[in-house]
Amino acid sequence: MAEVKNKQVVLKDYVTGFPKESDMDIVEGTISLKLPEGSNEVLLKNLYLSCDPYMRILMSKMEGPEGFRTYAPGSPLTGYGVAKVLESAHPDYKKGDLVWGFTKWEEYSLVPASLILFKIKHTDVPLSYYTGLLGMPGMTAYAGFFEVGLPKKGEKVFVSAASGAVGQLVGQFAKFTGCYVIGSAGSKDKVDLLKNKLGFDDAFNYKEEPDLNGALKRYFPEGIDIYFENVGGKTLDAVLLNMRVHGRIVVCGMVSQYNLAQHEGVTNLANLIFKRIRMQGFNVADYYQLYPKFLEYVVPKIKEGKIVYVEDIVEGLENAPPALVGLFSGRNVGKQVIVLARE
Amino acid sequence: MAEVKNKQVVLKDYVTGFPKESDMDIVEGTISLKLPEGSNEVLLKNLYLSCDPYMRILMSKMEGPEGFRTYAPGSPLTGYGVAKVLESAHPDYKKGDLVWGFTKWEEYSLVPASLILFKIKHTDVPLSYYTGLLGMPGMTAYAGFFEVGLPKKGEKVFVSAASGAVGQLVGQFAKFTGCYVIGSAGSKDKVDLLKNKLGFDDAFNYKEEPDLNGALKRYFPEGIDIYFENVGGKTLDAVLLNMRVHGRIVVCGMVSQYNLAQHEGVTNLANLIFKRIRMQGFNVADYYQLYPKFLEYVVPKIKEGKIVYVEDIVEGLENAPPALVGLFSGRNVGKQVIVLARE
Ligand SMILES: NC(=O)c1ccc[n+]([C@@H]2O[C@H](COP(=O)([O-])OP(=O)(O)OC[C@H]3O[C@@H](n4cnc5c(N)ncnc54)[C@H](OP(=O)(O)O)[C@@H]3O)[C@@H](O)[C@H]2O)c1
Ligand SMILES: NC(=O)c1ccc[n+]([C@@H]2O[C@H](COP(=O)([O-])OP(=O)(O)OC[C@H]3O[C@@H](n4cnc5c(N)ncnc54)[C@H](OP(=O)(O)O)[C@@H]3O)[C@@H](O)[C@H]2O)c1
Repeated sequence: MAEVKNKQVVLKDYVTGFPKESDMDIVEGTISLKLPEGSNEVLLKNLYLSCDPYMRILMSKMEGPEGFRTYAPGSPLTGYGVAKVLESAHPDYKKGDLVWGFTKWEEYSLVPASLILFKIKHTDVPLSYYTGLLGMPGMTAYAGFFEVGLPKKGEKVFVSAASGAVGQLVGQFAKFTGCYVIGSAGSKDKVDLLKNKLGFDDAFNYKEEPDLNGALKRYFPEGIDIYFENVGGKTLDAVLLNMRVHGRIVVCGMVSQYNLAQHEGVTNLANLIFKRIRMQGFNVADYYQLYPKFLEYVVPKIKEGKIVYVEDIVEGLENAPPALVGLFSGRNVGKQVIVLARE
Repeated sequence: MAEVKNKQVVLKDYVTGFPKESDMDIVEGTISLKLPEGSNEVLLKNLYLSCDPYMRILMSKMEGPEGFRTYAPGSPLTGYGVAKVLESAHPDYKKGDLVWGFTKWEEYSLVPASLILFKIKHTDVPLSYYTGLLGMPGMTAYAGFFEVGLPKKGEKVFVSAASGAVGQLVGQFAKFTGCYVIGSAGSKDKVDLLKNKLGFDDAFNYKEEPDLNGALKRYFPEGIDIYFENVGGKTLDAVLLNMRVHGRIVVCGMVSQYNLAQHEGVTNLANLIFKRIRMQGFNVADYYQLYPKFLEYVVPKIKEGKIVYVEDIVEGLENAPPALVGLFSGRNVGKQVIVLARE
C-alpha cells in the first residue's frame, strides 16, 4: 500500500478554561492513499480548514450536549473544511470532486460519505469561501437572520461579534433587507471594517464601553427589533434592557461563555415578558436543506460585487492551533481559515 | 349629588423588597353614585377583585416597562375585577350589566369604558370565575399554552406555580391535549391538589428539592418539551438543563423575582442553542381577540364537569392587602379572589 506522511493536529488532553496552543500537538502519522478493501468511505485531500468557536466546546470533558460528540484526546480534531476527493467508494463522489463538509485536522482524511455536506459547483469564487461565506457560517447567518429572525424592512438590528465569520454577513443581509444595523466588535480596526467596508450603519468597540446598556441606548434610542446573539453574557443582559416590544433574539452563539466553567448569570430575562420577546436558539444543521436557496440568494450578489467577505487566512497546519486559540481573544479579523493546499 | 362612602385600598409609598400589608392603607373616601356631567365613563359597583402577581411590579418606583404604568402613592390600586354597571355614559354598557376588566381596589369605581374588557354572558357559573378561570388568568393559560407553546399530543410539559390561578389550568389544558404534565408547587397540600384533584400526572414540592436539576431528571428522564414558566430564577436555570431538542419555554411570569432588587442570574442559556429552544414571552393582553374562542373551548368543559378550578376567596376589602401580599409567600391555594359584594 502507498503510505504517505499525514500531519495531524491532535488534542493532547481535555481543556478547561481558555484553550492554549499547547493543548494541541502536531504529530506526523501516515495514511494509505488507497481506500481500504470493502470501505464505503471517501478519501480526501484537505485544502482549507475552518476554525470555528464551537470546537472549543468539544474540547471539554463533558457529556456533550445532545447531538455533539466531544473530541477524544490523542485523536485529530474534526471540523469543517474544503477538500478534494482522491478516491471514493461512494457513488455520489468521484476522484477530483471538490467538496465541503466535515473532515479532520490533517492533510488527508478518510471520512464517511455522510459527513460530506455538499459538492462544490461554483468554482469561480475563492475556494476558501466554502469555509465561510458559502459554507457553514454563511448558512448560519442566512438561516439565523431570515428563518429565525424574520426581519422586516425598517427594523433595527444589533449584531455582536459583528466582524466575524457569521456577523459580517448578518450585517450585510440586514442591509439588503432594508434594516438599520449596528455591530459590536473588539477592536478599533474591526469597528472601522464594519463601518467602512462591511456596510454597517454604525459600530462600536464593546471593550471601550464599560456601560453597555448606556452604549446601546445611544445607538438604539428606540430599541432593538432583532438581536443576533453571538457572544452571550453581559452583552445579552444589556441587550435585554434595550429590546423593543415583539423583538426577537436569534441565539446563534455565546462565544464569551465557552471558556468559563460557570457561565455568567443573565439577570434581565423578565424583559422577555414585558416586551413579549421571542428568544430562539438554532443549529445551522437543521437548515441545510435551504442551501440551494441560499446559493441562489448569495451567488449573484457575490458576482455583482455586492457582498464583501473578510477572511483571515493562515498557511499550514502548524499555524492551526494558534489560529483556533486566537478566536477567543479576537485575534482573527474576519473568517479564520487555514490553508493546507490550494488544490 | 348622592355621595356614598367608598372604602379604598391605597398604596402608601413605593415598595422595595417583599410587599407588606403595611405598604397599603384602607381609607374611606366618598363617591357620587351619579355620573359626572359630560362624562363618558362607566360607574361600577365592584363585586370581586383579583389578586395578581404583576401588581407587585407596579408598586415599585421605576420607569415602568413599556405598556405598564406604576401605581401612584396615595391612590387606590388598580386591577382586574368583576363589577356591576350602576350607570353608563357609554352605549355598549347599561345599568345592571355584569362586566369584567380593569377596575380599582375600592367599593365603587368610575372607569373609562375602554378599560372594561368584556360583558359577562354566561352567568350560570360562579361570578368569581371571571377573575380566574373565565377571566385574565384563564386567557393567560389558554394563549400561553396553545398559542405560544404549540403543544402536540404526547409531549412532556412542566408547569411551575402549578396550583395557582394560571398553572392549574395549564395542567388541565395539557391533559386535554394528550400531554404528560408535571407541576411544582410550594407545599404538600398543593402537591396533593395537583395530583388528586387537578389531574396532573405527578407533582413535587420545590421547597423540598434542594437539587432541582436532579428532581427534574427524575420526573423527566427524557426531558421537557414545554416548560410553562411562572417563577423564573433557579427553576428556569434547572429547567434549561432538562429541555429537549426543539423544546419551548413559554415565559408567562417570573414571580420569584418580582421582589428582588437584582434578579438572580440564569446561567444555562447556552442550552437554547444546543437544544434549539424557543423561549418566548407573551402578554395576555395581546390575545384578548381570542376570548370568544376560549369560551367555546372552556365553557362546555365547565358544564360537563371536566374542568376543576380551585379558588381562594377572602371576604372584604380589609382582607385585600394580606391576600395580595400572600401571593409572594404562597399563602394562596388556587386563584386568590376578594369578594366585596355578591351582587
Ligand atoms: N448556531 C449555529 O449553528 C452556529 C453556527 C456557527 C457559528 N455559531 C456561533 O456564532 C458565533 C460567531 O461565530 P463565528 O464563526 O462568526 O466566529 P468569529 O466571530 O469569526 O470569531 C469569534 C469572535 O468572537 C469574538 N469574541 C471572542 N471572545 C469574546 C468575548 N469574550 N466577548 C465578546 N466577543 C468575543 C472575537 O471578536 P471580537 O474581536 O469582536 O471580540 C472573535 O473574533 C459563535 O458564538 C459561534 O459559536 C453558531
Ligand atoms: N404574561 C401574562 O400575560 C401573565 C398574565 C397573568 C399572570 N402571569 C404570571 O403568571 C404567574 C402565575 O400567576 P398566577 O396569577 O397564577 O399566580 P398564582 O400562582 O395564583 O400565585 C402566585 C404563586 O406563586 C408562587 N410563588 C410565590 N413566590 C415564589 C417563589 N419565590 N418561588 C416559586 N414560586 C413562588 C406561590 O405558589 P407556591 O406555593 O407554589 O410557591 C404563589 O401561590 C406569575 O408569574 C404572573 O406574573 C402572566
